[in-house]
Amino acid sequence: MKIVIIGATGTMGKYLANAFEQENEVVRVGTKEGDLQVDITSTESITNLFKAVGPFDALICTAGPTYVGPWKNMTDKEFRKGIEGKLMGQINLVLIGQHFINPKGSFTLITGALTQEPVSNFANASVANGAIEAFVRAAAIELENEIRINAVSPTVIEASPQYFPFFPNDIPVTMQQLEFGFSASVFGANTGQVIKPY
Amino acid sequence: MKIVIIGATGTMGKYLANAFEQENEVVRVGTKEGDLQVDITSTESITNLFKAVGPFDALICTAGPTYVGPWKNMTDKEFRKGIEGKLMGQINLVLIGQHFINPKGSFTLITGALTQEPVSNFANASVANGAIEAFVRAAAIELENEIRINAVSPTVIEASPQYFPFFPNDIPVTMQQLEFGFSASVFGANTGQVIKPY
Ligand SMILES: NC(=O)c1ccc[n+]([C@@H]2O[C@H](COP(=O)([O-])OP(=O)(O)OC[C@H]3O[C@@H](n4cnc5c(N)ncnc54)[C@H](OP(=O)(O)O)[C@@H]3O)[C@@H](O)[C@H]2O)c1
Ligand SMILES: NC(=O)c1ccc[n+]([C@@H]2O[C@H](COP(=O)([O-])OP(=O)(O)OC[C@H]3O[C@@H](n4cnc5c(N)ncnc54)[C@H](OP(=O)(O)O)[C@@H]3O)[C@@H](O)[C@H]2O)c1
Repeated sequence: MKIVIIGATGTMGKYLANAFEQENEVVRVGTKEGDLQVDITSTESITNLFKAVGPFDALICTAGPTYVGPWKNMTDKEFRKGIEGKLMGQINLVLIGQHFINPKGSFTLITGALTQEPVSNFANASVANGAIEAFVRAAAIELENEIRINAVSPTVIEASPQYFPFFPNDIPVTMQQLEFGFSASVFGANTGQVIKPY
Repeated sequence: MKIVIIGATGTMGKYLANAFEQENEVVRVGTKEGDLQVDITSTESITNLFKAVGPFDALICTAGPTYVGPWKNMTDKEFRKGIEGKLMGQINLVLIGQHFINPKGSFTLITGALTQEPVSNFANASVANGAIEAFVRAAAIELENEIRINAVSPTVIEASPQYFPFFPNDIPVTMQQLEFGFSASVFGANTGQVIKPY
């Protein structure tokens, strides 16, 4: 299977790329490093990426920039980081990528537990997550050629100890749990699901 | 209580304004008619509105423009209608309005059942709804001065028969149920809730 991983230079993406390349062809995509580059906030950059990638079977996105910071600083301007990044960035990967992906292919997007369980400073991520989870349900009934779409929604992951203080209630998700969450979407038959790997 | 209704010239807003003005001071806001005007896609227009309104106790928003149309026509461009309108429009009403609303005031935003139950042609509304419902949960833990925030999430309403064919599974929400959903938020004590008035 040919799997494109957007965010492959990040914490999650690096782990998933290493795991999935054992038995698949993995294309690692970053903003500056990796096999190929993309800026998901630009539809032109996304289109160029898919032209360079050629036909593929699965797209995983773990790139989801959002604004993290005090509510009192939060204006339209800060909020746009997640709107352009994690929200429209991932939606445009699907709206454009559906014209390049192989039949029976799959899209797997990243959200997070903040959709349902807010944490101070992370309102922008909550919004992007809630939007993407609704998008996944909506796109699943629209996509043609048996193309599937799911989201993986972990709480804080064990490889990100810098976030532990913000999530005192949450036992961190192990990297194996995270991998299995993505595997369920890429190698399973589900569509329109929000997969909680814990 | 002084209640500002954004979308007061629309189907829902007109009904709610008539109902709530029996026992409250209602400020009706439209884009061209009403007591005052606003374009929620413009932060400048929103700021000007709040300056004109003066102190108030509750804001209800039933203005939530989205793109409705075939998936195959859906690109970044069409998607922006709901992103700028129902999504960032409503978020900016709160980010800006929190500096004008009275202590213990409330914001009540509009979403809809499409968050959880997608319907063909309405992916843009699903995304805006999912985003706003997550925003309401996140903002509830951030807002100061005991300011509350909720969303009302009806399925198709009885006053919109033009949408019935799209929602064959749904018994339309009556206007009284809709009113009670908004009442629960405005006159109750809840915060961070998604109120389903059915
Ligand atoms: N870490 C956690 O505990 C956790 C838990 C739940 C959910 N999440 C969510 O999971 C996602 C990834 O988390 P992570 O910890 O793996 O993040 P990370 O280590 O910061 O990695 C982010 C990745 O996204 C890429 N990226 C950033 N902006 C981009 C853009 N505009 N276009 C294309 N790629 C871009 C980065 O590329 P470069 O390296 O080239 O900059 C990098 O590969 C985030 O959305 C986060 O909210 C994280
Ligand atoms: N109708 C239903 O069955 C139903 C069910 C569930 C959810 N919803 C949601 O409920 C919301 C309202 O529905 P509705 O049927 O009452 O809609 P509507 O009759 O079309 O009314 C829309 C209202 O929003 C105002 N508006 C539109 N764009 C605006 C902007 N940029 N800035 C400020 N105000 C703006 C309109 O003002 P003007 O009159 O001046 O243009 C009007 O007052 C929508 O978001 C819809 O998705 C509707």
